[in-house]
Amino acid sequence: MTLTISPIQGIPEVRAGDDLGGLVAAAVPTLQDGDVVVVTQKVVSKAEAAMAPIDPSDPRGHRAIVEAESVRIVRRRGELIISETRHGFVCANAGVDLSNVDEGWAALLPEDSDRSARRIRDVLRARLGVEVAVIVSDTFGRPWRRGLTDVAIGCAGIRAVVDLRGTEDSRGRELQVTEVCVVDELAAAAELVMGKATGVAAAVVRGVDPAWLGQGNVRAEVVRPPAEDLFR
Amino acid sequence: MTLTISPIQGIPEVRAGDDLGGLVAAAVPTLQDGDVVVVTQKVVSKAEAAMAPIDPSDPRGHRAIVEAESVRIVRRRGELIISETRHGFVCANAGVDLSNVDEGWAALLPEDSDRSARRIRDVLRARLGVEVAVIVSDTFGRPWRRGLTDVAIGCAGIRAVVDLRGTEDSRGRELQVTEVCVVDELAAAAELVMGKATGVAAAVVRGVDPAWLGQGNVRAEVVRPPAEDLFR
Repeated sequence: MTLTISPIQGIPEVRAGDDLGGLVAAAVPTLQDGDVVVVTQKVVSKAEAAMAPIDPSDPRGHRAIVEAESVRIVRRRGELIISETRHGFVCANAGVDLSNVDEGWAALLPEDSDRSARRIRDVLRARLGVEVAVIVSDTFGRPWRRGLTDVAIGCAGIRAVVDLRGTEDSRGRELQVTEVCVVDELAAAAELVMGKATGVAAAVVRGVDPAWLGQGNVRAEVVRPPAEDLFR
Repeated sequence: MTLTISPIQGIPEVRAGDDLGGLVAAAVPTLQDGDVVVVTQKVVSKAEAAMAPIDPSDPRGHRAIVEAESVRIVRRRGELIISETRHGFVCANAGVDLSNVDEGWAALLPEDSDRSARRIRDVLRARLGVEVAVIVSDTFGRPWRRGLTDVAIGCAGIRAVVDLRGTEDSRGRELQVTEVCVVDELAAAAELVMGKATGVAAAVVRGVDPAWLGQGNVRAEVVRPPAEDLFR
């Protein structure tokens, strides 16, 4: 099983109200059944107009938006806020982002990224006649480790976490716990061909295990409820 | 830029003292300059005899090994210990693993996974005449998000974190902070073709940005010093 990961070139600048699924379909008419399309949060937020006006010269403006987008402040140090969003994601600045957006605007997280992924998937089925999976990705930091990695904030057509508990390891003994978050691994893989400054906002992964395809949902499968979390 | 990720088939059962680089060279003689070879911790630990004897019927035995491998207990709930290893990694059970090893033994983390990666890289250069990067990967959980993902615990021939601070975004403005941990993203990508129960312990990623290649070190670049960490 070899995976290939290719950037999707040719998606034009995305504006509020754009049909993002249609733009992807036009850019990669060669999509095949079983492909995984990874789309970055930034263009999803732009298409959905998940934006807030901001005075870039006033740091309090940014902070106010971050606090409005947060349901719980987890840590605060200087200007950095680690908070929980209403979706349950814990990340820096509640996912509010000032890069690669028009001056005077901040990009917010989509209202429901799993729904965003389903809509794109439905458009790709309607336009191209293919059953693909869709992941909406974003760039998050993590405790203990430097450097950012891309993770999934929404998905459709693929299980977010693949549960290998109870299958046997290569010695024939039962594996203890092996629930792999394949949508996060796919989001990370896709980031490798997108870069941050090149304007490429989507990628296609071809060759994933067909057993992973099916109904999936990041908020339901990946977001860890506070009661079972040791770090909130 | 298209990436391909392929499992490395045909590495035999690894035993203490085996020349792991030589086994990889024999399994993929077609390696090319610039390829990234990802090898899982389990086979590195086996080759380096980083193992401890354990009585599988005695849960205290496992706990004692975990505590011996830890320099700081970060959280504890029931049998689960989240701790910091002497390398600075924060993970469940100090990385001590009972799956896919012989009954009566526990696999420990390699003493110095960056050194392990350098050794494999040196053997591949000597045997095959190629300049490749090598990543040693392991499977870690994370706060806030369910499901495990593979991350890098050692690397050679590739920068662990690629710093895009100061480069311009697509609007020509300076990006705020975009340090991407590419070795973690590559480890995650490689896991997608390895699975947990198939006995495939390594993969090759072809097509990475040549600008990332060069000296790198997970412990120096990725491990976040406790003083700048908000979650210890």
